[in-house]
Amino acid sequence: MKEFILRSLKAKTSPFDINDLKNAGRLDLVCNCITNALFIAGDLRRDAKIHVVLEGPNNPPKTISFDGNKLKGIEDEKSIAIKINEALIKSSGLTLNEELDINPGISIAKKSFEQLVKDKSKSNQLIYLHKEGKDIRKTHLEENSIFIFGDYIGMPRKTEKLLDRLKAQRISLSPIMLFSSQCIAIVHNELDRRSIKL
Amino acid sequence: MKEFILRSLKAKTSPFDINDLKNAGRLDLVCNCITNALFIAGDLRRDAKIHVVLEGPNNPPKTISFDGNKLKGIEDEKSIAIKINEALIKSSGLTLNEELDINPGISIAKKSFEQLVKDKSKSNQLIYLHKEGKDIRKTHLEENSIFIFGDYIGMPRKTEKLLDRLKAQRISLSPIMLFSSQCIAIVHNELDRRSIKL
Repeated sequence: MKEFILRSLKAKTSPFDINDLKNAGRLDLVCNCITNALFIAGDLRRDAKIHVVLEGPNNPPKTISFDGNKLKGIEDEKSIAIKINEALIKSSGLTLNEELDINPGISIAKKSFEQLVKDKSKSNQLIYLHKEGKDIRKTHLEENSIFIFGDYIGMPRKTEKLLDRLKAQRISLSPIMLFSSQCIAIVHNELDRRSIKL
Repeated sequence: MKEFILRSLKAKTSPFDINDLKNAGRLDLVCNCITNALFIAGDLRRDAKIHVVLEGPNNPPKTISFDGNKLKGIEDEKSIAIKINEALIKSSGLTLNEELDINPGISIAKKSFEQLVKDKSKSNQLIYLHKEGKDIRKTHLEENSIFIFGDYIGMPRKTEKLLDRLKAQRISLSPIMLFSSQCIAIVHNELDRRSIKL
């Protein structure tokens, strides 16, 4: 299983205009990330999952999870955005840590980023993508690694301390700052190369 | 200069619904490619260009070019799509190989894929991304390389023969078939790593 966590500090947590994702707290960038985590040319990555923690207004936090093994009826970024909107509408009354299935392979929970990474750290090696981290090409990666990305704003200092306490390993992909969606494509490429020789 | 050519066999060449890019011949995928060619977190790649050859209905071919060094006022995929639509509207009367400036850093020409790669081959090393090619990590890349991508449909056999005649080098990025936009992110990553050490 290849698993990703994206934290999106501004992405809306209440219904938004499906034709204006940029002004929904850069949900366009969130949809790019989900696409690159789960889709390849003509197929889904059945062995991949992504969790996106939305922390923008008006009802944060919300964690929406997409599972490539179960996903159906999603073909492009617009259909991803439509499902996120539907999930936000249906989840308005969730209590803390309660989870709701939205679609095959899509669920939403009233769960914070901190709670999510604490939960995941119990059985997974956390990998935090960071400019100052160790080069991914020189890093051994466990089968149960989960890759954690901040968004274009960056990760709050307090969160970085939590990740340190949870023994998240910092790795780097590039000498320059990329979009999270570009990072996800590069991580997948590294994992693909390790499992199937070119 | 880092330069890319994308051939999009179905992308519309007449005005389209800006809120339905998938049904405009997968212009959503074209916009993903332009984003990954030219944008990084918080900045433009000033040393990158991408040319997209659109060959869908109703007025093919059209080659639209984006130059990261001159681009202004483009912030997200929707604004890229709006500019493509504007370019298609303004270029309806162009004669063969005539070119029109649309915006700082954006131009459109009535030019075919074949003509474009023939023109570029005079002063550039053509690199054709192909599953059976040589691993990019083991390939020397010239400063003047241009990276050529087919779309999700694949490159017609006749075009592959032309690329062979123009001595395009075939290189491979991944053991699996990826979206062109994902390939562009991976090519940039390889070039970034070669110019600045991690």
